Amino acid sequence: MSRRSVDVPALVEAARAGSPRAVARLISLVEDASPALREVMAALAPHSGHAHIIGITGSPGVGKSTSTNALVAGFRRQGKRVGVLAVDPSSPFSGGALLGDRVRMQDHALDPEVYIRSMASRGHLGGLSWSTPQALRVLDAAGCDVVLVETVGVGQSEVEIVGMADTTIVLLAPGMGDGIQAAKAGILEIGDIFVVNKADRDGADATVRDIRHMISLGDRSGGEAQWRPPVMKTVAAEFQGIDEVLEAIDGHYAWMTEHGELHRRRRRRAADEIESITLAVLRARMGDLRAGHNIEDLAELVAEGTTDPYTAADKILSVL
Amino acid sequence: MSRRSVDVPALVEAARAGSPRAVARLISLVEDASPALREVMAALAPHSGHAHIIGITGSPGVGKSTSTNALVAGFRRQGKRVGVLAVDPSSPFSGGALLGDRVRMQDHALDPEVYIRSMASRGHLGGLSWSTPQALRVLDAAGCDVVLVETVGVGQSEVEIVGMADTTIVLLAPGMGDGIQAAKAGILEIGDIFVVNKADRDGADATVRDIRHMISLGDRSGGEAQWRPPVMKTVAAEFQGIDEVLEAIDGHYAWMTEHGELHRRRRRRAADEIESITLAVLRARMGDLRAGHNIEDLAELVAEGTTDPYTAADKILSVL
Repeated sequence: MSRRSVDVPALVEAARAGSPRAVARLISLVEDASPALREVMAALAPHSGHAHIIGITGSPGVGKSTSTNALVAGFRRQGKRVGVLAVDPSSPFSGGALLGDRVRMQDHALDPEVYIRSMASRGHLGGLSWSTPQALRVLDAAGCDVVLVETVGVGQSEVEIVGMADTTIVLLAPGMGDGIQAAKAGILEIGDIFVVNKADRDGADATVRDIRHMISLGDRSGGEAQWRPPVMKTVAAEFQGIDEVLEAIDGHYAWMTEHGELHRRRRRRAADEIESITLAVLRARMGDLRAGHNIEDLAELVAEGTTDPYTAADKILSVL
Repeated sequence: MSRRSVDVPALVEAARAGSPRAVARLISLVEDASPALREVMAALAPHSGHAHIIGITGSPGVGKSTSTNALVAGFRRQGKRVGVLAVDPSSPFSGGALLGDRVRMQDHALDPEVYIRSMASRGHLGGLSWSTPQALRVLDAAGCDVVLVETVGVGQSEVEIVGMADTTIVLLAPGMGDGIQAAKAGILEIGDIFVVNKADRDGADATVRDIRHMISLGDRSGGEAQWRPPVMKTVAAEFQGIDEVLEAIDGHYAWMTEHGELHRRRRRRAADEIESITLAVLRARMGDLRAGHNIEDLAELVAEGTTDPYTAADKILSVL
């Protein structure tokens, strides 16, 4: 938003020294697509790759915020610096977030070693905000040992989170997450760790069994070493089972490091990021073409049946 | 799929003469991204623009299939040739549709003037299938007077349907669609006609009032003529209120024609289509770059922190 010049190296320095205000300012710069964005990204690059990025997803009502809160407390006990990105769904038309900041996170609101940020999910494609990967880079470079990305909602954002996280935790609750439902929602493929929260409720063991069964059906053991996603039980509101989940998270990290999977995932993530930035730039150029009436004129011809959209696209491509 | 040569002009001829098999084959060609796709699109172009494209959307359980069925019966009584595209949600990973064809549509399965097709929604971006606009072109060119696009599910596909339809019908049910919920889901902005189905249930009038109130709040009367979306009641399973909806559909079409809105919408739709085909081609070229290791090499540099994704994207753009 602000066009006044930003001292990017000083901000990055302050963020790395542990200033929450500097971290917040850097995230705002990337969220607002500030003119300084490219300079910020270049300055962060040498300091990236330290944080373990953990995605947390699941349907509404399974206890994502409570679980995130409990995990943050656990990581803090281990002396780790923690970042939390809570990605809020928003109306595709309003452009703003409908939810405010997480009140349940207030346990950690005064801890200087915990950075919490709610992000809107913008853009008509929905799902995770396009600036989420960049905010992750800020928290990573600021020295977070762990960054939790909590996605609210279901569907698209669950799929996208896999592209951003080193480790994806899928939360379920008894009765909500039977195997077939999970398979339909496509979440079996994305979880590195499955957690059945609210496990003091009826049906928790059945849900665990169900998910284990569905995972075993989808087992793609093609010779190479495979991570077998554990299915665990928690009562996050009472911190039950949280230590075991923390152990599973460390176990997954160690396994990925040992098998080269961490590097593979991060390279894939970088490739996706490069691709999406490239497409965004190209789309902006097409926006220019649209303003310059090239696309509009061709659209007129397509609308009246004089030409077809493929031939029109070829014309645009020859200009780009 | 099939690589054997296709006699496109003969197929288009047969489709226009009313052969359901030819229509089905053309849709399969566009769904499968056949090598003949471009030839098909070019052959269809001169015959497009006749059909009134009607989108039907709403949350699960409001009675979309039943309503579509009732509307089809109504249009048939008017002697119109009708196309139905039912877009199914599918696992983002499986690539196939989880739901089969609509059983409730079987009322019309033997009517040669009704073409019914279920389409999978593919691609990791979810929502409507990328081939939906092309299947619409097939049904339009095949002489359908009306094409109903029914989207199953909520969220993304509701937004996308607006881009494809001339008229968008939003279905609600008593108690499910109170105004605030509708506003949150962003559906108030997309409906040209609102229908509260299952209106024999308690709360139907309250839902109608709620939606009317929310629409009046969002009224963007900026001088120019505005369509005021009617809010109607139906019991689709008993064909109650369907004639009134058919009248509202005709009324909306007449209004759009009179105010130039039909032409505007169709030109915008053509522009979107050109843009998305252009982006798809560019994305395929990036896929080539990826296979050719350009993006992979850059991703390695980003993953290790030697460069940042924006600088890497600039390098890709200089190659494209």
